[in-house]
Amino acid sequence: MAKSLVTGGAGFIGSHVARHCLDMGHEVVVLDDLSGGFEDHLPQGVTFVRGSITDNELVEQLFEEHKFEYVYHLAAYAAEGLSHFIRRFNYNNNLIGSVNLINQSVKHKVKCFVFTSSIAVYGPGQVPMIEDMVPQPEDPYGVAKYAVEMDLKAAHHMFGLDYVIFRPHNVYGENQNIGDKYRNVIGIFMNQIMQGKPMTIFGDGTQTRAFSYIDDVAPHIANSVNIPAAYNQVFNVGADRPYTVNELAQTVAKEFGVEPNIKHLEARKEVLHAYSDHSKAHEVFGGKEPVSLQEGISKMAAWAREVGARESQEFDNVEITEKLPEGWQVKIAAAKAKALA
Amino acid sequence: MAKSLVTGGAGFIGSHVARHCLDMGHEVVVLDDLSGGFEDHLPQGVTFVRGSITDNELVEQLFEEHKFEYVYHLAAYAAEGLSHFIRRFNYNNNLIGSVNLINQSVKHKVKCFVFTSSIAVYGPGQVPMIEDMVPQPEDPYGVAKYAVEMDLKAAHHMFGLDYVIFRPHNVYGENQNIGDKYRNVIGIFMNQIMQGKPMTIFGDGTQTRAFSYIDDVAPHIANSVNIPAAYNQVFNVGADRPYTVNELAQTVAKEFGVEPNIKHLEARKEVLHAYSDHSKAHEVFGGKEPVSLQEGISKMAAWAREVGARESQEFDNVEITEKLPEGWQVKIAAAKAKALA
Ligand SMILES: NC(=O)c1ccc[n+]([C@@H]2O[C@H](COP(=O)([O-])OP(=O)(O)OC[C@H]3O[C@@H](n4cnc5c(N)ncnc54)[C@H](O)[C@@H]3O)[C@@H](O)[C@H]2O)c1
Ligand SMILES: NC(=O)c1ccc[n+]([C@@H]2O[C@H](COP(=O)([O-])OP(=O)(O)OC[C@H]3O[C@@H](n4cnc5c(N)ncnc54)[C@H](O)[C@@H]3O)[C@@H](O)[C@H]2O)c1
Repeated sequence: MAKSLVTGGAGFIGSHVARHCLDMGHEVVVLDDLSGGFEDHLPQGVTFVRGSITDNELVEQLFEEHKFEYVYHLAAYAAEGLSHFIRRFNYNNNLIGSVNLINQSVKHKVKCFVFTSSIAVYGPGQVPMIEDMVPQPEDPYGVAKYAVEMDLKAAHHMFGLDYVIFRPHNVYGENQNIGDKYRNVIGIFMNQIMQGKPMTIFGDGTQTRAFSYIDDVAPHIANSVNIPAAYNQVFNVGADRPYTVNELAQTVAKEFGVEPNIKHLEARKEVLHAYSDHSKAHEVFGGKEPVSLQEGISKMAAWAREVGARESQEFDNVEITEKLPEGWQVKIAAAKAKALA
Repeated sequence: MAKSLVTGGAGFIGSHVARHCLDMGHEVVVLDDLSGGFEDHLPQGVTFVRGSITDNELVEQLFEEHKFEYVYHLAAYAAEGLSHFIRRFNYNNNLIGSVNLINQSVKHKVKCFVFTSSIAVYGPGQVPMIEDMVPQPEDPYGVAKYAVEMDLKAAHHMFGLDYVIFRPHNVYGENQNIGDKYRNVIGIFMNQIMQGKPMTIFGDGTQTRAFSYIDDVAPHIANSVNIPAAYNQVFNVGADRPYTVNELAQTVAKEFGVEPNIKHLEARKEVLHAYSDHSKAHEVFGGKEPVSLQEGISKMAAWAREVGARESQEFDNVEITEKLPEGWQVKIAAAKAKALA
């Protein structure tokens, strides 16, 4: 029985990947610090270890104890827009944490290291995004992801560590963290609607993304270790059709049976149009027609209504407050006031 | 009077840059943890703070206290070949340390952040190296340097932090650490000769580098903050003429008046031929005919004879020992034996 480590397995994509690994007959250990995930999301049958990938001793100990064959590394704090303001945290959590796992994977001769990178590595103006384009990440989140990609290549070159890299495109679905106001626009909309608040959109809402339903993404990630042609390759993965954020808001509102109530905030610096070419993934992984936005939203909404609205979490270690977008400032001001009181 | 921070100012290039800054009339604070530098190298007139760029609180405090106008960031552990085996240390020291400085430079509105990257960002097979080539670093040292370059671009884009990036090419000269067996081939040769040992060369010695004398590099780094055309640009800097490592060994031996005694070790994975195009630097910084290898070696040798041979330091926190090159293994084995005793 293959033994796999899934980091971030209490999170959104990770919990689905862990479930697919169980389905494939793997023995699964999940390492997650619950900073963005939930124990409720853990599929039955995994061994859960609560802890951080930045805790090098713990990571060493886990590899020593379990001798993993496969590592699925999904743990990260994936708030791209916020990463400008939390540089240090971003690199520590997303890069150093990854490097701890790569070191141990080399040492313990892991058979395949599967890593979820991001389309953030492409940077602006590269559409459709294709895997062999030159990455030009323009925020610390994308830089950290790209650095891990390059480090994996170096580890493969030097030590023969095999890897598969995925660059998923705005994934949504059941188990997504809908209480994090810094990311996951679909979750944010659902949470806002359930709280009776307006949906907030940065800028005029004409920015486009090809929102991808989790079932079009997680199975490929889990299965990739079985596909030799996928080894040491990079894959875009997700849906093809871009929608504007305005269209998205309409769709979500309709699903919840409410009139769309939208509040536009000042535009932030972000990539305007993003969609990926998925020919390479189709070729190697096959794959069916992707789930339509309406159908995916409908499934996720059913789940969201069941779990209910979530209190928005605050990231309380912002390092730079200059130019922090509207709405992200609030609680920092509150925290400062509290600290002064 | 401009106030400047020079990190790594007790090191080789940093000590020269600090001296040029003093000559330009700057008030200079040096931050160095002496992990690879020496207090003796500090030019008279600087304020020396012993500490690490990874100590975020110390970094914050220094910026708070001194309100630097310019930051010259040279602190790093620059052992490229070793970086495969000390990944975690490498990213922590060279990337997280840099990010601490970038954060504070944004906060305190530093006028220009000067960073010494490396030709390691280019990766293999790209000769002559030209600044607008696509970086393809193939070791963690190069990945960390490139990540810092990208982070600086992101910080410029988001916060307007101006930067100048240098990619110096195998620099040598007075004040170089000749006691670090993991890097600085010229220093290693000189140290070996002074200790009556053979000069060790990885592989057959036909690999080429354009060894660059410090006086062709440090003045440009120091002066760059005064040149608006250099802002937010990347520059190769150094000599043009490549020499084989064998030729280098001959030149050094001749300078010390000894017969070349060479011991070839097993080749390690490294870039075979490397030389840079320096047209861009010449255009922006001007510059005279570079110092010849013979002249530079002669100057450095005079200094080296004065300071004498150095006990080779050992890096005692190697993370991966697999494939560690010959000669780098020795003391780890010794350390392990010691630990077991
Ligand atoms: N959702 C997307 O659209 C998308 C797109 C591209 C890439 N990704 C990547 O996919 C991965 C999963 O993202 P997600 O959307 O499921 O996010 P998520 O927040 O739901 O899952 C991430 C999980 O990692 C955990 N985690 C974070 N830091 C950790 C640490 N230091 N130690 C241990 N656990 C830690 C969190 O608690 C969480 O459970 C991430 O690497 C993310 O960057 C996601
Ligand atoms: N020498 C070269 O050929 C060359 C080529 C390309 C780039 N560089 C870069 O130029 C810079 C200077 O290199 P050098 O050759 O002078 O090396 P060096 O080792 O002589 O100088 C580096 C200095 O940084 C200090 N340092 C290291 N880590 C530190 C930390 N965490 N906190 C504080 N100080 C720390 C060391 O003590 C040392 O004094 C480095 O960034 C290096 O990567 C050098």
